[in-house]
Amino acid sequence: MATQTINKEELSNLSFFLNKPNDVGYSELPKPTIQSEHDVLVAVNYTGICGSDVHYWVHGAIGDFVVKDPMVLGHESAGTIVEVGSAVKTLQPGDRVALEPGYPCRRCHDCLSGHYNLCPEMRFAATPPYHGTLTGLWHAPADFCYKLPDSVSLQEGAMIEPLAVAVHITKQANVKPGDSVVVMGAGPVGLLCAAVARAYGASKVVSVDIVQSKLDLATSFASTHSYLSQRLPAEENAAALKKAADLGRGADVVIDASGAEPSIQTSLHTVRMGGTYVQGGMGKSDITFPIMQLCMKEVTAKGSFRYGAGDYKLAIELVAQGKVDVKKLISSVADFKDAESAFNKVKQGEVIKILIKGPNEK
Amino acid sequence: MATQTINKEELSNLSFFLNKPNDVGYSELPKPTIQSEHDVLVAVNYTGICGSDVHYWVHGAIGDFVVKDPMVLGHESAGTIVEVGSAVKTLQPGDRVALEPGYPCRRCHDCLSGHYNLCPEMRFAATPPYHGTLTGLWHAPADFCYKLPDSVSLQEGAMIEPLAVAVHITKQANVKPGDSVVVMGAGPVGLLCAAVARAYGASKVVSVDIVQSKLDLATSFASTHSYLSQRLPAEENAAALKKAADLGRGADVVIDASGAEPSIQTSLHTVRMGGTYVQGGMGKSDITFPIMQLCMKEVTAKGSFRYGAGDYKLAIELVAQGKVDVKKLISSVADFKDAESAFNKVKQGEVIKILIKGPNEK
Amino acid sequence: MATQTINKEELSNLSFFLNKPNDVGYSELPKPTIQSEHDVLVAVNYTGICGSDVHYWVHGAIGDFVVKDPMVLGHESAGTIVEVGSAVKTLQPGDRVALEPGYPCRRCHDCLSGHYNLCPEMRFAATPPYHGTLTGLWHAPADFCYKLPDSVSLQEGAMIEPLAVAVHITKQANVKPGDSVVVMGAGPVGLLCAAVARAYGASKVVSVDIVQSKLDLATSFASTHSYLSQRLPAEENAAALKKAADLGRGADVVIDASGAEPSIQTSLHTVRMGGTYVQGGMGKSDITFPIMQLCMKEVTAKGSFRYGAGDYKLAIELVAQGKVDVKKLISSVADFKDAESAFNKVKQGEVIKILIKGPNEK
Amino acid sequence: MATQTINKEELSNLSFFLNKPNDVGYSELPKPTIQSEHDVLVAVNYTGICGSDVHYWVHGAIGDFVVKDPMVLGHESAGTIVEVGSAVKTLQPGDRVALEPGYPCRRCHDCLSGHYNLCPEMRFAATPPYHGTLTGLWHAPADFCYKLPDSVSLQEGAMIEPLAVAVHITKQANVKPGDSVVVMGAGPVGLLCAAVARAYGASKVVSVDIVQSKLDLATSFASTHSYLSQRLPAEENAAALKKAADLGRGADVVIDASGAEPSIQTSLHTVRMGGTYVQGGMGKSDITFPIMQLCMKEVTAKGSFRYGAGDYKLAIELVAQGKVDVKKLISSVADFKDAESAFNKVKQGEVIKILIKGPNEK
Repeated sequence: MATQTINKEELSNLSFFLNKPNDVGYSELPKPTIQSEHDVLVAVNYTGICGSDVHYWVHGAIGDFVVKDPMVLGHESAGTIVEVGSAVKTLQPGDRVALEPGYPCRRCHDCLSGHYNLCPEMRFAATPPYHGTLTGLWHAPADFCYKLPDSVSLQEGAMIEPLAVAVHITKQANVKPGDSVVVMGAGPVGLLCAAVARAYGASKVVSVDIVQSKLDLATSFASTHSYLSQRLPAEENAAALKKAADLGRGADVVIDASGAEPSIQTSLHTVRMGGTYVQGGMGKSDITFPIMQLCMKEVTAKGSFRYGAGDYKLAIELVAQGKVDVKKLISSVADFKDAESAFNKVKQGEVIKILIKGPNEK
Repeated sequence: MATQTINKEELSNLSFFLNKPNDVGYSELPKPTIQSEHDVLVAVNYTGICGSDVHYWVHGAIGDFVVKDPMVLGHESAGTIVEVGSAVKTLQPGDRVALEPGYPCRRCHDCLSGHYNLCPEMRFAATPPYHGTLTGLWHAPADFCYKLPDSVSLQEGAMIEPLAVAVHITKQANVKPGDSVVVMGAGPVGLLCAAVARAYGASKVVSVDIVQSKLDLATSFASTHSYLSQRLPAEENAAALKKAADLGRGADVVIDASGAEPSIQTSLHTVRMGGTYVQGGMGKSDITFPIMQLCMKEVTAKGSFRYGAGDYKLAIELVAQGKVDVKKLISSVADFKDAESAFNKVKQGEVIKILIKGPNEK
Repeated sequence: MATQTINKEELSNLSFFLNKPNDVGYSELPKPTIQSEHDVLVAVNYTGICGSDVHYWVHGAIGDFVVKDPMVLGHESAGTIVEVGSAVKTLQPGDRVALEPGYPCRRCHDCLSGHYNLCPEMRFAATPPYHGTLTGLWHAPADFCYKLPDSVSLQEGAMIEPLAVAVHITKQANVKPGDSVVVMGAGPVGLLCAAVARAYGASKVVSVDIVQSKLDLATSFASTHSYLSQRLPAEENAAALKKAADLGRGADVVIDASGAEPSIQTSLHTVRMGGTYVQGGMGKSDITFPIMQLCMKEVTAKGSFRYGAGDYKLAIELVAQGKVDVKKLISSVADFKDAESAFNKVKQGEVIKILIKGPNEK
Repeated sequence: MATQTINKEELSNLSFFLNKPNDVGYSELPKPTIQSEHDVLVAVNYTGICGSDVHYWVHGAIGDFVVKDPMVLGHESAGTIVEVGSAVKTLQPGDRVALEPGYPCRRCHDCLSGHYNLCPEMRFAATPPYHGTLTGLWHAPADFCYKLPDSVSLQEGAMIEPLAVAVHITKQANVKPGDSVVVMGAGPVGLLCAAVARAYGASKVVSVDIVQSKLDLATSFASTHSYLSQRLPAEENAAALKKAADLGRGADVVIDASGAEPSIQTSLHTVRMGGTYVQGGMGKSDITFPIMQLCMKEVTAKGSFRYGAGDYKLAIELVAQGKVDVKKLISSVADFKDAESAFNKVKQGEVIKILIKGPNEK
């Protein structure tokens, strides 16, 4: 698809639906039209598959979010502008963009005070009841579409969403130059957190996982150290980790990008007195937690949820400047018609990140 | 004891020792002498009993801190300056002071960066192997002795230590004017946190406890609202609390001053999206914890451990300005010879705060 | 005007225009209609006069903002809801509200990151080319209209705007409990800053002015100390001020609410090492400034411009809780037809704050 | 000088004195002895010359600091441990160290709260009345001597002091990944600020100077852009700078490392709405300053004074990791006997940074 003007009439709006758990299929949606002078239409070129997409596919729900009606999946996308509203000055047809897929109300206190990711009226792609981006044409406010520089490809553009997740986690963690950072989990978000932490100037970044091959990727991708997590009580595991990575009294920052109970427990035993721990990965609602580590070490613990103002912009810049090479994490690219097979590969853990072409992408 | 010069020779240095669990007694310690030009000697006038003192008395240990040799108890004290080192300019004999009872190394990174409460070489009174302040004469660096204004009595001075704990917790919680603050637990520290939160300008302060009489005290002391905690799943308990106190989507700040597992769980379900929760109370090392509340609401959770730079100064000012009336929390004052009986009263929960006179106090 | 439903048809939309410098007059504007489902119509009850209104009246411009066409003056208003858009859930006709008079774009980075007061596309009342609130009917987005509690009158409601200015300045100053705060200038904003600083828990608030009667008002209103500024070199004036108010090495926070060059110079010599100085008052573009005081004392200096998320809410709460008694600053209330005379009184310095009734107010 | 044990008896303690303005000479000082168990003796290997050294040499004073008695110059040094006190565990004879040359009291509120650089009792090398480090043997507390990793040479070690100045400035500026940073002045500190800003992840670093050759060095050393400052009114100069460096509405951060009045004025016109400006360079006490730029753009302005906790550690790490190549800034190395000639070269602007060997260095 060239960067010249696209004829909307020629585009398919075929969409990849989750009908109910483990039941997916294709259906053509009516083509959207511009609803506000601030909005744009985007032809979707590439969409990555996220763990949450797979979770909806398998379970039909994440926490309180239950898929009741057929819902289009996907929210990690890049596309090409097809049409812009009359008030849009920053984009024009043909521009290639990364799509931020959640649209807040802009009017609540969270929105007005700079925390739109916490907006209670957020409309987030592929979170029920809202359709996702595995579709042909996407309708969005222009300020949530981020123009890609020439040096960033559309495939890389589809990686901006998970990279923005990592940027947000790393901001929450307040990583500073010279810091030692431990990242629990070497899946896509953990790998990207490691890379962002280095871009933030961390001196030491230790990836931790239970799979050696993932650690090998981590150290080739971004981490300075790795640690193969042991089936030990958390305190002992943390002691071994601190020793292996020469962390002395503990890490300045620990990011859990796994959501796994033993990792979270180990995180609290690994962070230093006065250090910071961020929970970035999702998992069980309730776990056994070493609360006195938080209290007596005066740890600052933070959650991280999606991304906010500036995160997409920084993610794109990190790619443009070569600080995070997201291409290394793209295992393969599937045709739109092969979406279910791509989902299966993610479910089986056969890939780091797989992209699905849009229905209009050759 | 008048505020004029005290003759050190006439003072007893009788001390109240924990010999082993449930075995206490008195013994005269050698009188200390000034060790550094920056140090002072203080005659102890009043000492409050803390839950940790009772815990050592009953269990002989708190976590990794184990009482191996007989140890003098007590660390919540006010006293009168007896002697000052040659470099001390801010204090003179006869001055009445609140004693900050922990002395950091001043040389580690934690100390130099303004977090001396996290100093790994901290020498803290009545934390093994260091003796406490239930003694006649106390030796301390001058900068950890805070002169009491004329309007603050020595008995109030002995309350500065727990008030400084509350000041530190409230600072960690970053309470701001207009905030809604929930305080779990209406023991001495919880009550003081409620009062400090109001001094910080909180619009609404909700005390939560399982004992109605404590809540009655809380609302007469400082809180604007109270809630009798229910034996319900934490999420339901939090929902009832939020409704009862008209907290809408949740409290801006939740402080746990109880250390109790159900309170901590309820805390996480009570704090709003983007709010702050501080763990101020000590309890079990590991608990069941609603970790996804932290993650998905982007809660900032912090531990609070003892107190740091400026906390004693602010605590004294809050008393001097009448913003926190600590006298209301002093249930009774015991003679030094009745220390064990006083400990028993605390153990039985018969008192809010009991003070013990120093051995030289009439 | 009762709080029941108001018939829009019966309302006048007479407006008080600035035609050109020193030339004002009345003219009926067409009645506005709801433009968006999120908007409301408000009947204006009371409007305070701000120094900037007077400045436009006399000079026809403030900096780059030049009045080219006749412009309605006024932006400190409270009113009563007449009509609400279909999506408005938080307000209904008859509700009494304080009007936040600046409407940002909600789409730029400043808006999305929580700094809407810095929005380059801000539409601010009575800032050319936008009309102000000295009119009958006002059209606004619902989220910029703040419902007044029953305990807050409409006249107090018109004081919320300058109080929000003071709230914002005090937030910028990061005033904390126990702080010493010096406020340069005892005009309306300076007086309100003093009151807000005390609500934030400042132990000492020193008002500084060159008019003794203003200082007398300041100490009766909110300040703990006052200082009559001397015609001395700034360093000497600051030394005398620090001595008079027992500020030792300097004030934790200095707020300039005067905009006057000597005050700003004195501010920098008054703030302590590591303290904070906020420039809240507007004045000359360029002044002689003791820059090395900023550098070598590691002062944090901040500007403060209008108000942002949460400021109106807090301002209303401070009034509702009786922490700031804005009624004391209302010198008189003028009829709408006497607006020019009211402007004259402000220009002559005869009043602290004068309110003008709306054209429909009896 | 090998890293093995050094015989103190064999070392000269010849020192380079400033007797009075423009009058320097050599004199042997008595060899120091360890005064506290926490102290060490260091043989000085290399010392850089700072602008402040030259200023004392020429003027005999900086502000209130007046050289009344002959004073040893120099404070940018690296050395080798000769002897350690009995309580020193982190260093041993033969260790190569960077010397932090200012020793705070450790007891005032500034020290205890993590701002020891603001300590009013600071004893700083070559600031009257304290001798500097252009000497043979230096006596210091061990915690202010930072061990150099094997990969960092002693000559690089002497560059750690100015690099720590730049680290501190950049911390004050709160530079974050993706930021645009303008650095006024391309002298040693300005160059190092540019390099540190990049290590902090700044996307764009613009060096500004009035000398093209310095700008050429800046871009070869660290900056992404440069701008030759024009003799224009500050607002116009800033407009040209913003245009030349494609800074849009202004830079996120502006650091003045020049101390020059026109640079400071341009800084305020260059920083964006809501941005940060740090005054790092010293110059005239009072200047004409565009104060309304600070106010109406809500700029955060900060001073930066010397360095504090963690700054030396980070500076060393930046060198060790190859992020800042300080060797490039060392123009030449002079023998101890040629110190005056070296000072002359700095005064004439012939060098970026010149090091002087210690009296025992071959």
